[in-house]
Formats: sequence, structure tokens, C-alpha cells
Amino acid sequence: MGIHEEMLEIGNRAVSASRELLRLTSRKKNSILQMMADEVESRKEAIKAANAADVLAAKSAGMAPAMVDRLTLTDSRIQSMAKGLRDVSGLKDPVGSSISRWIRPNGLEIVKTRVPIGVIAIIYEARPNVTADAAGLCFKTANAVILRGGKEALQSNKAIVEALRLGGQKKGLPEYAIQLVETTDRDAVRELVQLEGKVDVVIPRGGEGLIRAVVEQARVPVIKHYKGVCHIYVDAAADLGMALNICENAKCQRPGVCNAAETLLVHKDVAARFLPMISQRLGGECKVELRGDDAARAVVPSMKSATEDDWYAEYLDLILAVRVVGSVQDAVDHINRYGSNHSDSIISASPEAQKVFTQDVNSAVVYVNASTRFTDGGEFGMGAEIGISTDKLHARGPMGLEELTTYKYVVRGSGQVRE
Amino acid sequence: MGIHEEMLEIGNRAVSASRELLRLTSRKKNSILQMMADEVESRKEAIKAANAADVLAAKSAGMAPAMVDRLTLTDSRIQSMAKGLRDVSGLKDPVGSSISRWIRPNGLEIVKTRVPIGVIAIIYEARPNVTADAAGLCFKTANAVILRGGKEALQSNKAIVEALRLGGQKKGLPEYAIQLVETTDRDAVRELVQLEGKVDVVIPRGGEGLIRAVVEQARVPVIKHYKGVCHIYVDAAADLGMALNICENAKCQRPGVCNAAETLLVHKDVAARFLPMISQRLGGECKVELRGDDAARAVVPSMKSATEDDWYAEYLDLILAVRVVGSVQDAVDHINRYGSNHSDSIISASPEAQKVFTQDVNSAVVYVNASTRFTDGGEFGMGAEIGISTDKLHARGPMGLEELTTYKYVVRGSGQVRE
Repeated sequence: MGIHEEMLEIGNRAVSASRELLRLTSRKKNSILQMMADEVESRKEAIKAANAADVLAAKSAGMAPAMVDRLTLTDSRIQSMAKGLRDVSGLKDPVGSSISRWIRPNGLEIVKTRVPIGVIAIIYEARPNVTADAAGLCFKTANAVILRGGKEALQSNKAIVEALRLGGQKKGLPEYAIQLVETTDRDAVRELVQLEGKVDVVIPRGGEGLIRAVVEQARVPVIKHYKGVCHIYVDAAADLGMALNICENAKCQRPGVCNAAETLLVHKDVAARFLPMISQRLGGECKVELRGDDAARAVVPSMKSATEDDWYAEYLDLILAVRVVGSVQDAVDHINRYGSNHSDSIISASPEAQKVFTQDVNSAVVYVNASTRFTDGGEFGMGAEIGISTDKLHARGPMGLEELTTYKYVVRGSGQVRE
Repeated sequence: MGIHEEMLEIGNRAVSASRELLRLTSRKKNSILQMMADEVESRKEAIKAANAADVLAAKSAGMAPAMVDRLTLTDSRIQSMAKGLRDVSGLKDPVGSSISRWIRPNGLEIVKTRVPIGVIAIIYEARPNVTADAAGLCFKTANAVILRGGKEALQSNKAIVEALRLGGQKKGLPEYAIQLVETTDRDAVRELVQLEGKVDVVIPRGGEGLIRAVVEQARVPVIKHYKGVCHIYVDAAADLGMALNICENAKCQRPGVCNAAETLLVHKDVAARFLPMISQRLGGECKVELRGDDAARAVVPSMKSATEDDWYAEYLDLILAVRVVGSVQDAVDHINRYGSNHSDSIISASPEAQKVFTQDVNSAVVYVNASTRFTDGGEFGMGAEIGISTDKLHARGPMGLEELTTYKYVVRGSGQVRE
């Protein structure tokens, strides 16, 4: 069997499973999630053994320590997987709920009903925790899932998926509701993302390179974010103490994530007061490398000089680009030009400036007087997150259970025909 | 300037216009729509003259009469365009409304806010009425629109767009909010649908060939339906009189449209009673050609024999494929296999059969005891329609104003940082 036929078979099995999933009640799905969690726990040693083989191979292949850390499963990480599955079982099931309902003058009742998307493919890197998280969220929303993780985590993923399937099947999980692509054939991803009519959406999770490769090859819809170039704009009417705390949080609390701030924009009227505060707290205490434009460096000459590339950069590191702007409109223009439509924040007490910023910034999440670090399914109260979207259609920002559903119209009549 | 640069310039102008459109109030937009309508009326003679040139050229090029009819603008059709624009000005503006709102324990207020999509490209055939309709709906939702109609309608479209722009600009329509692609370069469509970061979504309207060509070339999201292979399933528990009326309406009232029925599925327990009724009313009075499977022909031997291709066919004509099925589940399986995910109806008094059908049929609109012909923005009460989607994501079924919007999160705090 060639790779095309192999992926097609996986796709066909997923479509069949998606039909079976429609018939599971919320109660049934929740008990299946509980059994999955139990089985992950009871197979902890087997999962750790499989993971140890992956880690050993990765180390001898020279994988970077940060990557090895993400690959490694400990008792507490396996415990978190099980807890994640139990948490998802406790969330409200969006499937089957009525989004809106109206009755037409001719008596037709139209109900816009929330339904699963169908078949979801998740393409990700060597992070085995994604396997359990994504499988749990897709299953809860009655979607069949096809998982393709990084090859360096294959043994770990096989052990985890085996636990999920065997545990779930004790309570009636459809056999092919959760499938792992086990081949290491490099063409597998291309075949998978071209399965029109089988795969309804692809969600790639990982670095920009992985996501661009998926988008380049895909013939089915992709929901994604390439990167997070998030901005903090400190307005002329900002509380500078608040602004300083938010800048520190957005840049330093966890610099390696997509909702960390990468660029600071400061209104010219407060630059002379605020930039020395930034230099002291972020540049000094927090060891952040500051890269400023000429106006910023005129205030804090110790800053490095920013180049055009800095405005586009997602550093994922303790580096911050700094620019002085003439107005909130200039800040908006900078963000819409250089940003990634992810998360951007204005620090201002001015309702006018807030209004311009929230209306004109073309991003999935726009903040007023808060840190960009809140763009996260958990922080939004969604209970869980399958990813973050910077796309315009279907889902934007943190994606929880609802974002894994779509709708259909169910129209009930009593013999109505069109005039 | 090459075609790439030409389309890129159109895209850049649309992006700029989309920013300006964000600032227009609903009242302002409505007065602009009124002025567009007035100008279409006052330029009626110029529009008719331009159209006459298109019609003359089309006729001498041998265009089919049905196509020439669609191309031709009469006084009443121009009046309908103006009325359509006024109707849209009277519809509720979805932009800026709050879809949902909640407050987190840390005090953050999260508002999911309806916003325009941004820039929409409409690719369509030689039907000049689409020009005014699509421009009006996109403008009402504060989207910049790029129109690319069939080349046979170019003079008509230029005259209509000129009226829309000049009329609208009297009240502040942004200069490039409505753009018509005037080049006849065949590469224009390909360039347009690959303008990532400029064009947010493409909506092709026309035959399956046009839509497949757009999808094949697109690098930006496309919302579409390829075709409408709609089914009526007459269950064992059907009121056969109701079923007969609905079949006649769905097949015969307007056979050339996408929500007309193409296939009739009949439960075996009622086939012997129902198929002779169908043969008499549809086959006889309505002159519908019936193409049945063996079981159907055993009841009505005068039916032609259906082939496998008939189950996939969108006849758009007075032809109906007929199949006898063993159960509602068999009907569902047929529809999900051969159908187009558009509109399908069950005729049944049985709550169990209704439940299986509405849950399992994987279509945008699923009917119970009603004609499939109601899949239409006007019939749904949306006031207008930009098209119909059989996709899974973003919009399904009839697309009105709301479906031309997306959302962003506006999050308001008082200095919150993440723990």
C-alpha cells in the first residue's frame, strides 16, 4: 500500500467514526474520557518506557536540550495528561445546542444547531502532551481526530494513543475515532492535508516553518497562527506604573510563548519619562535586551539600534523592540503593518484612544490596560485550548471546545412548499 | 504594469479602504446605500446603453439564449437593483454588536465583538445584477469588495459600479471600497485569489467549473458550494399527500436552481403506493423524466433505468432520480455518499426517523416535512443573500449579512498581569 492509499484509508476510517460519534450522548462521552484518563494512569510505566526510548534516540541524534525537555514525560506530566482529560469531561458539551431559533411567517421553524466539524487533523511537533490534549478535545466535541506528531515522539505517542483507545473502548469509543499516523514517510503530511472530502480541517501546531509547510500543501481548510508578534502601546494618557508592570509581565513572565510581547510602542509625550523606567526595570533587573529606534535611543542611549527586521521579529526571547510613535493612530498603523494579528494591548486612560485602538487594530485579541499574556483558552475561561488562530474566518484567538464545532440548520415544517 | 502588480494594487487599495470603512456608522452606511440606489436609478439609461453593447456582442459571439437573458438588463431589473440596495440599507447592521461578554474572576471583561471580515473578492459570471447585490451587502458589513464578473458583462458592470461609486461618494463612500477588476487578462482571477494578507476571503458564484477553477488556484479561504444535489426522502411514516406536494414543489417549481431536488428516496414499505402517485403527478402532469432503480421500476415500469451517475447528478432540469431504500439509515447513507451537503428533506411523521435523519445527514440545511426550495437568504428571513455555502467552516447554508462578518475579542482590564 502506497502512502496515498494509506492516508486515504485513515481518512475513510475517520469519516466512518465521525458518523458513529454523532450518536454518543454527552454522558457517554464523559465516561469515555474518564476511562481514557484512568488508562493513561494505569499505563504510566509503559508510557514512560516508550518515552525513554524516544528521549534516548533524540539525545544521541543531538536534539537541543529545550526540545528534549518538551519531549520528556515525567510522572507529573503524565498525571497532567490524565487530569486534562478529566477536566475536559467536566466541561459543558457544546454539541447539539441551539445557537439560535426562529419561526418564519409560513410556520417553518429554523434552528441553527451546533454540530461537530467532522474530521480534524492535528499536525504537531515532538510534544507528546499534545497527543492526549488534542485527542480529548476533539473527542469531546464528537470529532474524529487524526494525529500526526513529530517523529521523535513516535514511541511515546503510540503508547499514549494505545492507552486512550483501549481505555475509551471499554466504554464504547468508536474504533477509529482517534487515529495516530505511525508512518515516518515524509509525504504523509502532504497526503493528509489534501484529503478533500475526508479531512474537514487541519490544525497545525508548532513553529512557523511547520505551519507554512502545511499551508503550502493543504487543499483543505487550515486554522492556524504563524507567529505572535504582540505589541504593547503606551499612550500619552497611560498610567505609567501600570504600563511598566504590564510590559514586564508581557515580556518577561514567559518570553518563549506566542502571546509574549515583542515590541513596545511609546507615545512621544511620555517617552522621556517612560523609557528610563523600562530601561531600569526590563533592561536592568530583567536582563532584557532593548532595541530602539532613533527617538528611543535619544532618551536611552544604551539601547541597541533597531533595524526594520526588528519590527517583524518574534524573538521568543528576552529581547524587546522599542519605538516612539506620534499618536495612537501611528501605533495602530505600525501594528497592522508589522504585527501578526495575534494580541495587542493599549495602556491608556483615554476613552478616545482606547476606542481608536480597539476598533482599528486588526488582531484576534485587542487588550485595554492588560497584559497580552492572557490570550489563552484557560485564561479566557474556555477550560482548555486546542490552539490559537490569527485567521479571519471560523475561529479567532484562543480555540476551545466551541471552536471545534460548526453548525447546521434544522428546519421543521408541516408540509410547507415555496410559493 | 503586469497583471500581478495590477492585482496587488487593487488589493492594497482594498485593504486601505477596509480601514476607512471601520469608521462609518450604521446611519452613514445606510445613507450611502440610499444614494447608491438613487444614482443607479438616475443613470438607468447609461446602464442600459452599456448593457446593450454587452448583449449585442454576446449575441454575435453566439451566447446561448438563457445566458443572454441573464445578461440582459431591463428597466424592471435595474429597478430591482435599486430596491435591493434600499432593502439592504434597511437591514440591521451586525457590525459592532457584542456576540457574547463575560467577566473573568480577575476582573478582565472579555467581549466577543462582531467585526467585518476585511476584504472580500467576488468572482462571478455574466450576471450584472450580482454586481449591485454583492457590492451592497459587502458595503453594509463594512467590507471592501473586489468584483470580478464575467467578461461578457464588463460594460454593464462598469456602468453599475460607476453609479454605485459616484452615488456613494456623495455621502462619503471611501474611494476604493468597491472595486471592479476591469482587465480581461485571464490571469487576473489567479492573481486575485492568491493575494494572501490582502484578500481575506473569496466567494465564487456560478457553475461548478468556475468554482473548481477558483478553488484550485486559491491560496486564500474560499466559501462556496459546488452544486446542489438535494434529496427528498419519503419515509414509511410519511403523509403521502404532503410528500407528493413537496416533491412537486422541490422538483418542478424552479428546476434550474441549486435547492431544487434531484433525487427522490422512497422507503420500501410505501413505494408501491407512492411511486404511482409520483409517476402520475410528476411524470405525467409535470413532464418530469423519472429515472429509477430496479425496485422503483418494478412498481413503475415506464421509468427509465438509473445508472450510478444519476445518483451524483445535478440535473438542473425536469429529471428526477428515484431509488427505493430499506430504512431511514439507508437514506442517510445514500445522501451522505452521493449528495452535495446542500439541502435534504425527510417527509415523515415518526419522531425517531426525523431524529436519525436530522442528526446524521451531513448537510448545511436539513428539513423535516418541508421543501428544499426554502434554502435561500430571503426565505430564511436574512433579508438578502450573498450566496450559499456547503462548506463546514465559518458559514453554512444561506449567507446573509452576519455571514459576511467575523469577530474579535476586546478585553478590558485595569492593569491585570498574568500570574
